[in-house]
Amino acid sequence: MDFKNNDLSKVMFERHSVRRFDTSVKIPREELETMIKEATTAPSACNLQSWHFVVIDTPEAKERVKKSVMKFNYPQLDSSAATIFIVGDTQSHLVYRDVWNKVREAGKITQERLDQILNTFLPLYEHADQSFLTLDATMDCAVAGMQLLLLARAHGYEANPWSGVDFKTIISTLGLDPKRYVPVMAVSIGKSAEQPLKTERYDVKQLTEYL
Amino acid sequence: MDFKNNDLSKVMFERHSVRRFDTSVKIPREELETMIKEATTAPSACNLQSWHFVVIDTPEAKERVKKSVMKFNYPQLDSSAATIFIVGDTQSHLVYRDVWNKVREAGKITQERLDQILNTFLPLYEHADQSFLTLDATMDCAVAGMQLLLLARAHGYEANPWSGVDFKTIISTLGLDPKRYVPVMAVSIGKSAEQPLKTERYDVKQLTEYL
Repeated sequence: MDFKNNDLSKVMFERHSVRRFDTSVKIPREELETMIKEATTAPSACNLQSWHFVVIDTPEAKERVKKSVMKFNYPQLDSSAATIFIVGDTQSHLVYRDVWNKVREAGKITQERLDQILNTFLPLYEHADQSFLTLDATMDCAVAGMQLLLLARAHGYEANPWSGVDFKTIISTLGLDPKRYVPVMAVSIGKSAEQPLKTERYDVKQLTEYL
Repeated sequence: MDFKNNDLSKVMFERHSVRRFDTSVKIPREELETMIKEATTAPSACNLQSWHFVVIDTPEAKERVKKSVMKFNYPQLDSSAATIFIVGDTQSHLVYRDVWNKVREAGKITQERLDQILNTFLPLYEHADQSFLTLDATMDCAVAGMQLLLLARAHGYEANPWSGVDFKTIISTLGLDPKRYVPVMAVSIGKSAEQPLKTERYDVKQLTEYL
């Protein structure tokens, strides 16, 4: 892997949200797909991989999506080389049996483990309500999104996650089925054209308890 | 930062969920807190930092939490040096005005930006229902959790995220207020005692669309 920046501590600790990008910079679609592919090495609940990506990287697409984006996020959308909407797939479990049968066929897990997965985990999803499936897909998308934020920097770009969208209309605006997909996070990527704000964090002692 | 492993591509792409750990390995609480502090460099919605951490690192605490953990996650819980429950704080916005006033006082943002934050973003949270606040906190916890998974490897350990808990009782079992906190993710950390399963991912072409 030949990252521009492969220094984990620099990539992670010097990451700050950038909201204004250099509009002259484009990112090839091949590189965007490489970043998405790399981001999906993230773990997901039961390896359901309940994430889906819609890329906005043309002036026309940016205009089309605006009707479902809150105005305060227009600067990121407008100036980014690409904005990637990460949406959750609440029907990812419908292919679940096939996925795990293949893992078994490849000899990677025992029949006992397969039975456990299909008989213990699968029913949890098959009987789950929309709220559970939404939370689960949100978690999957968020972890992939976090990796994407780091990967943007690894590839020499900066990024910004945002979710200021009209939750009722964004999925349709993205051309997807609103019964199946749920909005989670948009990630705008490009070359920075600003000094980003370095925000503070609460003290770890305040945040941590021991049972 | 002196990580044991600071090679981003190795830390990210050779990460696999480990479910059985070497039970002889302990992690000092100071190091656990360092990892949590590092994980919270993650971004959060409006910098609300809606994450909270409960560490289980003694045999007694492991026994206490079991009544709210599904049996198939006992191996991780029992063998890990520490299991960190990341829970979402749905009341993080109650201190929101103070946090941003301090950022303004420190001269980091303009009065105009402060007004935008307090008048545009804050009302979204103050008028939000529990479902929105839960989703938002879930996203914050998941991105911090993803960083924690990477940081475990950076510190020379392996980890595994899981959420097989009884959602109705886990928060009380952790000694927290179930009206305020929501369960998101447990991360078990330790030295690996198994060859982890390397799971497959869907093809990026299947996952990606262009608007």
